[in-house]
Amino acid sequence: MTINLGIIGAGRIGRLHANSLTTRVPGAKLLAVADVFEAAAKSAAEDFGIPDFSADPAEIINSADIDAVVICSSTDSHCHFIIEAARAGVQIFCEKPIAFDLAEIDEALGAVAEAGVQLQIGFNRRFDANHARLKRAIESGEIGEPHTLTIISRDPSPPPIDYIKVSGGLLMDMMIHDFDMARFLLGEVEEIYALGDVKIDPAIGEAGDIDTAKVMLRFENGAFGSIENSRQAVYGYDQRVEAFGSMGAATTGNWHPNAVTISDAASVRRDLPLHFFVERYFESYVTEMIAFVDAIANGKTVPVVGNDGRVPVLMAMAGMRSMRENRPVKLAELEP
Amino acid sequence: MTINLGIIGAGRIGRLHANSLTTRVPGAKLLAVADVFEAAAKSAAEDFGIPDFSADPAEIINSADIDAVVICSSTDSHCHFIIEAARAGVQIFCEKPIAFDLAEIDEALGAVAEAGVQLQIGFNRRFDANHARLKRAIESGEIGEPHTLTIISRDPSPPPIDYIKVSGGLLMDMMIHDFDMARFLLGEVEEIYALGDVKIDPAIGEAGDIDTAKVMLRFENGAFGSIENSRQAVYGYDQRVEAFGSMGAATTGNWHPNAVTISDAASVRRDLPLHFFVERYFESYVTEMIAFVDAIANGKTVPVVGNDGRVPVLMAMAGMRSMRENRPVKLAELEP
Amino acid sequence: MTINLGIIGAGRIGRLHANSLTTRVPGAKLLAVADVFEAAAKSAAEDFGIPDFSADPAEIINSADIDAVVICSSTDSHCHFIIEAARAGVQIFCEKPIAFDLAEIDEALGAVAEAGVQLQIGFNRRFDANHARLKRAIESGEIGEPHTLTIISRDPSPPPIDYIKVSGGLLMDMMIHDFDMARFLLGEVEEIYALGDVKIDPAIGEAGDIDTAKVMLRFENGAFGSIENSRQAVYGYDQRVEAFGSMGAATTGNWHPNAVTISDAASVRRDLPLHFFVERYFESYVTEMIAFVDAIANGKTVPVVGNDGRVPVLMAMAGMRSMRENRPVKLAELEP
Amino acid sequence: MTINLGIIGAGRIGRLHANSLTTRVPGAKLLAVADVFEAAAKSAAEDFGIPDFSADPAEIINSADIDAVVICSSTDSHCHFIIEAARAGVQIFCEKPIAFDLAEIDEALGAVAEAGVQLQIGFNRRFDANHARLKRAIESGEIGEPHTLTIISRDPSPPPIDYIKVSGGLLMDMMIHDFDMARFLLGEVEEIYALGDVKIDPAIGEAGDIDTAKVMLRFENGAFGSIENSRQAVYGYDQRVEAFGSMGAATTGNWHPNAVTISDAASVRRDLPLHFFVERYFESYVTEMIAFVDAIANGKTVPVVGNDGRVPVLMAMAGMRSMRENRPVKLAELEP
Repeated sequence: MTINLGIIGAGRIGRLHANSLTTRVPGAKLLAVADVFEAAAKSAAEDFGIPDFSADPAEIINSADIDAVVICSSTDSHCHFIIEAARAGVQIFCEKPIAFDLAEIDEALGAVAEAGVQLQIGFNRRFDANHARLKRAIESGEIGEPHTLTIISRDPSPPPIDYIKVSGGLLMDMMIHDFDMARFLLGEVEEIYALGDVKIDPAIGEAGDIDTAKVMLRFENGAFGSIENSRQAVYGYDQRVEAFGSMGAATTGNWHPNAVTISDAASVRRDLPLHFFVERYFESYVTEMIAFVDAIANGKTVPVVGNDGRVPVLMAMAGMRSMRENRPVKLAELEP
Repeated sequence: MTINLGIIGAGRIGRLHANSLTTRVPGAKLLAVADVFEAAAKSAAEDFGIPDFSADPAEIINSADIDAVVICSSTDSHCHFIIEAARAGVQIFCEKPIAFDLAEIDEALGAVAEAGVQLQIGFNRRFDANHARLKRAIESGEIGEPHTLTIISRDPSPPPIDYIKVSGGLLMDMMIHDFDMARFLLGEVEEIYALGDVKIDPAIGEAGDIDTAKVMLRFENGAFGSIENSRQAVYGYDQRVEAFGSMGAATTGNWHPNAVTISDAASVRRDLPLHFFVERYFESYVTEMIAFVDAIANGKTVPVVGNDGRVPVLMAMAGMRSMRENRPVKLAELEP
Repeated sequence: MTINLGIIGAGRIGRLHANSLTTRVPGAKLLAVADVFEAAAKSAAEDFGIPDFSADPAEIINSADIDAVVICSSTDSHCHFIIEAARAGVQIFCEKPIAFDLAEIDEALGAVAEAGVQLQIGFNRRFDANHARLKRAIESGEIGEPHTLTIISRDPSPPPIDYIKVSGGLLMDMMIHDFDMARFLLGEVEEIYALGDVKIDPAIGEAGDIDTAKVMLRFENGAFGSIENSRQAVYGYDQRVEAFGSMGAATTGNWHPNAVTISDAASVRRDLPLHFFVERYFESYVTEMIAFVDAIANGKTVPVVGNDGRVPVLMAMAGMRSMRENRPVKLAELEP
Repeated sequence: MTINLGIIGAGRIGRLHANSLTTRVPGAKLLAVADVFEAAAKSAAEDFGIPDFSADPAEIINSADIDAVVICSSTDSHCHFIIEAARAGVQIFCEKPIAFDLAEIDEALGAVAEAGVQLQIGFNRRFDANHARLKRAIESGEIGEPHTLTIISRDPSPPPIDYIKVSGGLLMDMMIHDFDMARFLLGEVEEIYALGDVKIDPAIGEAGDIDTAKVMLRFENGAFGSIENSRQAVYGYDQRVEAFGSMGAATTGNWHPNAVTISDAASVRRDLPLHFFVERYFESYVTEMIAFVDAIANGKTVPVVGNDGRVPVLMAMAGMRSMRENRPVKLAELEP
């Protein structure tokens, strides 16, 4: 069964999914791309051989030919398009975060539930080979009962200040992936304590954000976790997780562009790790899209559902309150 | 500029190139596939969306629409198709080895030269990220003047005995890649000394072949090399090279499906390396095809020329004579 | 110049220092060993060729021949012997922790100051090659301004419950080494938030202690740190530290008994890391004793002074209060 | 039971053994040291607290107090002292190589046999933790039936030309350790093919030696081996071995002074490996001496016997003939 798809938003991530859908995803047919900047839509259509393009996402959402939409527009428009698509009875893939506001998210999830369509959230890291292996180590009992989780997640360099201003802040924009990873691996979190500061660029602080954070998690099952984020690791994208349990530990390492070691009079060294998320997580973006199309085509539940998009937003809010008030904050405090 | 291609041979490697050409190679348009087993050609055409298929390779070679052919048929037909394609003025990509017979190879290379077309040989490992990095370490002077080269190359398990019988033998079928790698990295070889034996499966010996070999190379520039081949490493595909020189060493490692370490009461371990060449060298097959199409489209010389296909055959012959006579054999002895 | 030493306490750690002092420490002459269990003192004297032994530490402390004492008795007797030794004008090395009580510690440090003798605290891990290299990476600016510190420190198995009952608790007995490491590498800590629980053995909880903890540190210089302790890593002693800064990261790994990798049909693996502190930190115990004797002999300041023994005790107290009250606790709150 | 020992030769290696015997070897009592340069003997006696020293080795050998001698003098005097010691009924440890001449070796081994004393040869690398683990992997069947062996052994820098002139050449002086390792791990070698050249320093060639060699071994059990030696690896001592067999592979790595990885904007790197044999093989020198003293004290056979010193000399001779005649040479050709 072929699934006909449309992409909403032809920026970097929209183009990345367009590439996957046109070359790597069995059963996917990418029919259209929309972007409020028509030139971007047109350019993506040409580059990826997409039959139709438009400046109006509603055209795609309401087209009789479209089975599913992939929402890659700016965060503030996600809920709007989710609701429109749900009402049109179209299956939905939406990039993270759904929104910065719980009420808005709950309205969107309500529309999805009412329409009986599926909504997959773009937490691509779950589909990364390292994290999938870690998950398997935990679920298979290979490391026994999990006791602790340690996540280190660092970007190679900060985004532009203009992006930071609309990003929702480091916890909402960057650590949200790690909050998802924590839930994915060890289940729900009860309480969060967060330290955050500006250490890299004062302009980030002037924009109201932080660039370095270290966060403690208390899981509902009693396990303890920590997450560290930095906007700037000069050696490149640093993405490591360790789960430790009663029978052992599972630890991921970074990927490098090659597996060559150079030994000379100065050191024994490797080239830097893969630079950023496009390189590091390329295959996971493909895999999540394969999983989405497969679920839609075969009537399975999508692997990352709406609530998986909601809870990390709640966690980011709890973390931000914890920093403001310098105390551990329970997620329950944030619930409406 | 778009290059219209046809594939001859729809077996495993033909399908691999079909996949690359239809999804990953800029400027490539795969118009047709031929296989003497028409069902194979048809199936490939359907699976990869190739417009035409045929049981007759000559149809493709002589089609006015075809700019280049990719020869993936059995080794004994390579030269025939090269000559036909050359006479038709079509650009040629041919899998390794060109042939098992020097006279035949020289006739084919002569036809290519006469026709003024290009011929690229499928030594895909040159395009692997590890080997490319090694090459760069050598050419940039990062490890100084090369003194020695050590190649370890082991398959996960032997091919079927029926294949072994027509393979030309371990040196011609398997070590030929390592002979190419030796030349690619350190230049021409003057003399070869080879040890070979049956250690894995007596049936391989009964088929007239060996399954384990260790070979010594004396390069023209004075460097020394060694190559080790085994048809069976129970832990999977083992592909490592070390170049050592006056300023240091460059050493490649294997790639694993994930970068996860599991520590438990028994050991600290990783999952096995990528199992075999399709997994390990997938990207290098894509990259060689990108390089071929780019060269054809832009009038550049292809990166692996006909003589690069001829010399490793000569090296395999020298190695086989060395084993028979238990003495070092100069390549010059084998020249007609 | 030769330093004449006496050891007080002939248990495991006393014997370890006896071995170092009799075989590896230049300028050291071990004259006597005392233990309230005379048999232990006698046995150590025989095994290490120590001329005198006694059941009365005071004999050693007050001997005219003794320049320095090495206090390896139980924690509750440390301050008593420090004060006696100080009054006798003898130089002092004392194992960690000095005591569990601040007032007691301050009295001992007061006696040391008054007597004008030196007191070195046995934080041996500072002398480990990995931690020394980390320190150098930080001090030399190799990783720039430090932003975060991550310490993972796990024992292979819990001590006997009887020991746990008198240990002062996990933070005072085990994490105290990590508190010292944090100060050694990044300076003073301002505030601590701690999570702790019983995950390994309920008997540990019944003894009033925890076996798993994850602690967050806010350093005075603004850096963030985390420490994780577990009483049981089934794969052995796990001792890793990562310092991350504006110019890079320095990360220590574990040491294994050999550098051999075994690849078989199941995995690519190494033998387990060195099992526990005696194996892992053997050389650091020798090195700290060399440093102590060198400082005493040459009139230098010892490398780990009395206050270095006091502050980690304060940190352990802050951590314990944090766990009880589930809030970040400033060290200043604990000061008398 | 205490073994009273004397050392003959107070150079670097003699002092190294003196250190082991006075601090690390249970049951050993080092009574005397002799060196034809009396000042060297005196200095060693003082530095290690050895009661007697002498300029005349015969004094030690013939002393009634001496149970065993450790011969660390220059190679040309080894056989002389072995014979003297055998005649005096003294147990013997002798550094490698025994001699450069087979007739001389056979005379010495004859004297040892006749006297019924034991002779241990100083092939310390057998006692290295990596090589011992490799041996265990082979003997336990962990890697199945061995098919190949690959040894890479490189020094950090060439010895002085004056030493090279009396060294017996690279194969006799340096590769002799690797020949022993090959026998230790896979048993007897039948045939050798060797390539050797001067690549590092022309002065080495002028002194009649080579500085780079790559050698092929055919074992009696049918396995194949290769050994590579270089007098100069600019990154330090490079000592690696891989045994490959029907069930897997065992591969040793180098040891580094610390297990710290530094990641910065340029690379992910480690400090250079341990620089040379004193650092790298320190513990193996201790362990071989412990094994020697234990064997002597307890009437066990020493772990490396006279024939283990003879065969590698034969292998070096076969290798040298192979290089001269550019053909594989059987060891049997060299037997008298």
